[in-house]
Amino acid sequence: MSPQPLSSPRPAVILSKDEILRALEGLDLLPRIEEGFRAYSQGRAVVPPVGELLFSQPPGDVHIKYGYLDGGDHYVVKIASGFYDNPKLGLPSSNGLMLVFDRRTGSPAAVLLDEGWLTDVRTAVAGAVAAKHLAPHPVQCIGILGTGTQARLQLTHLAAVTRCREVRVWGRRLEAAEAYADEMTRQGFSVRACGDAGEVAAGCDLVVTTTPSAEPLFDADDLRTGAHVTAVGADSPGKRELDPKLLARAARVVADSRSQCLERGECHHALAAGLLDPASLIELGEVIADPALGRTSVNQLTIADLTGVAVQDIQIATAVLAALEA
Amino acid sequence: MSPQPLSSPRPAVILSKDEILRALEGLDLLPRIEEGFRAYSQGRAVVPPVGELLFSQPPGDVHIKYGYLDGGDHYVVKIASGFYDNPKLGLPSSNGLMLVFDRRTGSPAAVLLDEGWLTDVRTAVAGAVAAKHLAPHPVQCIGILGTGTQARLQLTHLAAVTRCREVRVWGRRLEAAEAYADEMTRQGFSVRACGDAGEVAAGCDLVVTTTPSAEPLFDADDLRTGAHVTAVGADSPGKRELDPKLLARAARVVADSRSQCLERGECHHALAAGLLDPASLIELGEVIADPALGRTSVNQLTIADLTGVAVQDIQIATAVLAALEA
Repeated sequence: MSPQPLSSPRPAVILSKDEILRALEGLDLLPRIEEGFRAYSQGRAVVPPVGELLFSQPPGDVHIKYGYLDGGDHYVVKIASGFYDNPKLGLPSSNGLMLVFDRRTGSPAAVLLDEGWLTDVRTAVAGAVAAKHLAPHPVQCIGILGTGTQARLQLTHLAAVTRCREVRVWGRRLEAAEAYADEMTRQGFSVRACGDAGEVAAGCDLVVTTTPSAEPLFDADDLRTGAHVTAVGADSPGKRELDPKLLARAARVVADSRSQCLERGECHHALAAGLLDPASLIELGEVIADPALGRTSVNQLTIADLTGVAVQDIQIATAVLAALEA
Repeated sequence: MSPQPLSSPRPAVILSKDEILRALEGLDLLPRIEEGFRAYSQGRAVVPPVGELLFSQPPGDVHIKYGYLDGGDHYVVKIASGFYDNPKLGLPSSNGLMLVFDRRTGSPAAVLLDEGWLTDVRTAVAGAVAAKHLAPHPVQCIGILGTGTQARLQLTHLAAVTRCREVRVWGRRLEAAEAYADEMTRQGFSVRACGDAGEVAAGCDLVVTTTPSAEPLFDADDLRTGAHVTAVGADSPGKRELDPKLLARAARVVADSRSQCLERGECHHALAAGLLDPASLIELGEVIADPALGRTSVNQLTIADLTGVAVQDIQIATAVLAALEA
């Protein structure tokens, strides 16, 4: 077979956030993100270490994630920032964009000016993937820590993998938790705002942490045996949401990326504290490919540490581009 | 003093290559690139290690360079690719784009769809900066190795720092060297196409190498004492243009970035061969700040190893943005 003829390069498609939101409608991202993790854990993706810029005054962090899947038509570069004083200016903390390039010529194929939205969505879909493969069945009560965009998206996407609609939420400000409860109740959940993170942990068997905290949000002892926790907030070495003792207690600690979680996220802190054997870490893509590596009993505590892997960005960005071309 | 009030974020400016070319007209980039190198060597820039993607079938490499200057308003991310089979498809090897973000909020300020042009230009300006600070005065004859875009741009930009218009050029294909000679002669240079790279090295006292070669282009012994060589082609660990013995012979080996040149470029190979003491490496920004670190005699052989530093991208991208806003 002769190689595919190359069409002459077209100008890059440039999409605004609104256009991206429309392209996302009707896309079933869960199997695409699952396939991204599977490819990553099977060595079918090229994903170099995360690029990072840290800022002070005002405080912020920028992550550059990039790579490609073997056999794919594109390479993807994603820039995502969190500037945590933005809300004082009436701006969301998150921003960023994704770039899709032709992997045979380097021509830009798409500039997705998503303002960080695709990063938020692919993170929420990864939370649903983790819950699908690790949460107890059936889930009795979902616990959400944090009240921001990611806290909303996680719950919305969990609805695709569990029938549970009972929710407890906690935020640093009780009013924010109450506003979250009101909003998500209108979306069909039954939500109770709690004044204490430990109360959420104690009452729920699927807990998702979504904050930029630098300290554990609750005590390891607060959590039920048999629960699953997905931690998505800690994407920098300085951030963490879980008590390292919780990782020591867990029957399964599942990382989205073993190499990334050794350097950032919850695992990083538990390793530093000598409470986690790196050899015991399992990757989410390995659990997707072989469910025996995941939860095998209702009494197991499981943890998913999601730091965000470029395969998620590759999968969502190319899905948006494919939807446009369809 | 209260902090500067922030205006609400404007949508990112998106510029095509043609618009960028117009914005570049009349910009004096040389002092800006000098200031970039000076800031870098004085620790006033944040420039993490280069991100890299390597491809085969077709062969290509992608470099992601990013960072910010202390006190600057922006952070910059630059993606530049070389896909070396592109000319078979009628496309230039180089492509890429630059992104400028507000360093206080993460909002995208500009998407510069320069198709790699700004990378080509800032590389050529760096060649002029190196010649200004290291070449003998006066230059007798300029030698150019390579016949592509960078070979043209280097010569054009050298005209700002030397009155010499005598040029010898070599390329793998003699016809390409002859076409280069014709074109640059029309631009006011007196150019002789040579069939042998050693003939260029032997006849010139300011030599610029601009190829993606993986092997030395000429013997160390070909070069005159008192010459200066600027090597700009080798930006990946697998590329090199100079005989490592040449670096051993040199009175000064000047790197655009000490840390980058230990991992890629000519220095990397000379170090691996045990022919270069890393402690002897000087940075271009150090020479700009203190000319005593540069050439001090007409009999010295000097070498500048330019791998391309994000400060150049930061300086040229923000200059384009400032020109638009002026």
